[in-house]
Amino acid sequence: MSVSLRKARTIIRKTLENGHEMELKPLSVVVLDAGGHVIAFEREDGAAPGRFAIAHGKAYGSVMLGMAGTAQMQRAEAQAYFMAAVNGAYGGQVVPVPGGVLLRDRKGAVIGAVGVTGDTSDNDAAAALAGIEAAGLTGEI
Amino acid sequence: MSVSLRKARTIIRKTLENGHEMELKPLSVVVLDAGGHVIAFEREDGAAPGRFAIAHGKAYGSVMLGMAGTAQMQRAEAQAYFMAAVNGAYGGQVVPVPGGVLLRDRKGAVIGAVGVTGDTSDNDAAAALAGIEAAGLTGEI
Amino acid sequence: MSVSLRKARTIIRKTLENGHEMELKPLSVVVLDAGGHVIAFEREDGAAPGRFAIAHGKAYGSVMLGMAGTAQMQRAEAQAYFMAAVNGAYGGQVVPVPGGVLLRDRKGAVIGAVGVTGDTSDNDAAAALAGIEAAGLTGEI
Amino acid sequence: MSVSLRKARTIIRKTLENGHEMELKPLSVVVLDAGGHVIAFEREDGAAPGRFAIAHGKAYGSVMLGMAGTAQMQRAEAQAYFMAAVNGAYGGQVVPVPGGVLLRDRKGAVIGAVGVTGDTSDNDAAAALAGIEAAGLTGEI
Repeated sequence: MSVSLRKARTIIRKTLENGHEMELKPLSVVVLDAGGHVIAFEREDGAAPGRFAIAHGKAYGSVMLGMAGTAQMQRAEAQAYFMAAVNGAYGGQVVPVPGGVLLRDRKGAVIGAVGVTGDTSDNDAAAALAGIEAAGLTGEI
Repeated sequence: MSVSLRKARTIIRKTLENGHEMELKPLSVVVLDAGGHVIAFEREDGAAPGRFAIAHGKAYGSVMLGMAGTAQMQRAEAQAYFMAAVNGAYGGQVVPVPGGVLLRDRKGAVIGAVGVTGDTSDNDAAAALAGIEAAGLTGEI
Repeated sequence: MSVSLRKARTIIRKTLENGHEMELKPLSVVVLDAGGHVIAFEREDGAAPGRFAIAHGKAYGSVMLGMAGTAQMQRAEAQAYFMAAVNGAYGGQVVPVPGGVLLRDRKGAVIGAVGVTGDTSDNDAAAALAGIEAAGLTGEI
Repeated sequence: MSVSLRKARTIIRKTLENGHEMELKPLSVVVLDAGGHVIAFEREDGAAPGRFAIAHGKAYGSVMLGMAGTAQMQRAEAQAYFMAAVNGAYGGQVVPVPGGVLLRDRKGAVIGAVGVTGDTSDNDAAAALAGIEAAGLTGEI
């Protein structure tokens, strides 16, 4: 099972709708496939210009390590030099905080990840999770 | 005048529709703002995983140089080492071929760019142009 | 609304004048546009040769994150690995301390940033703010 | 003898004035010191956002190699792989075409360089040379 463009669009639309309901700041949302490659991205009007790199970094680390943003943050807090080294190995493209959410199929296999940025990391993750569930998928924050 | 997310979505949707009508291979489409930063991106099912970087590279060089893909290709063919050097100065992120299309406002100022990849460069550019015009904007291929 | 070269020159001249009045060390000042791209820069005689990168890094992070230097420093002090990761995502070009000052229009939209370096970070920020106000703009330190 | 900020400002102002008289497209002008570090830069309204990197690349290669833009271009045309390799050694920051102009003192020692971009390479170089001479210095294109 893979994430289709249609599914990715739904995740993004529902995540943004959720951000509006939660009255969050303008969000940016990326959906990556099982190889960590971009399927779709949207940045809301009013978001800072550099948000693609942050959204991407949250999702990319999730896929590449098979570890969602919360777990990455815990590892970074326990052993900062390890996550710094991992980041070096991944070309500096990992942003290890909540808002990077793993997508899994029914058997638990990772099929991609969602990255959300714009509000607090916890709110970013909550909006992503709601968007993923509205699209009929299971997220791991 | 700037490109809103709503406008960017329309450009992408219309470019993909156009690709279907022209019976092109699966396309990937990015829309950048006037600073070369990503507003929105979509990659169709069946496209190769690395298409984001190609679409982005076509649009990014267009914005940064103020020169659309066709003009970049002509310069690259006339003076290959110059475009190679420019690319170094821009971190290797420039793909100087058709499919990078400048967006201009009514006064001619660059307000962003569209990058399309997936079929031949000329077909990519044609699909982008049709999508841009369907969104009520003017494109320069 | 965007920052013209004329406006950027005024900001730089007034920031340098302010540094002289405050008897600061030689300053370097950069003005970036809303996409994080350089409009103008000046380094005073006697400043260290590497000051462009520091001034640029203060202003660049401000624009890309939509967060001025003081807020970036607070985030870096609270969660060092996060700002380190953000910096990786932005190619190592972010210097998260005061002296990076956001420029906003009357509606609050970010239209660019000023980066100042040479004295203490707080003095750099104070000189920038005075320069920005002398140019009729609003700064956020 | 070194290039003061006052001198750099004059070079930039005179180069831009010259561009206006020659009816060139909007120019961007950088002045580097004898170590290849930025003293001052200005980008005219209407120039593409990425012009700093091109102006810098023309001047940087000139200082680092002690060879002005025209000579760099001749070398690139005669031996493209050599200039490509040089560029790798200099972090991809060299743009080997006219518009990179060496500044020399009366004894012929290199004291810095000027980089101009925006119009054709030859017009860029001509504007720079006129600006340098108006500032009482000698340029080598």
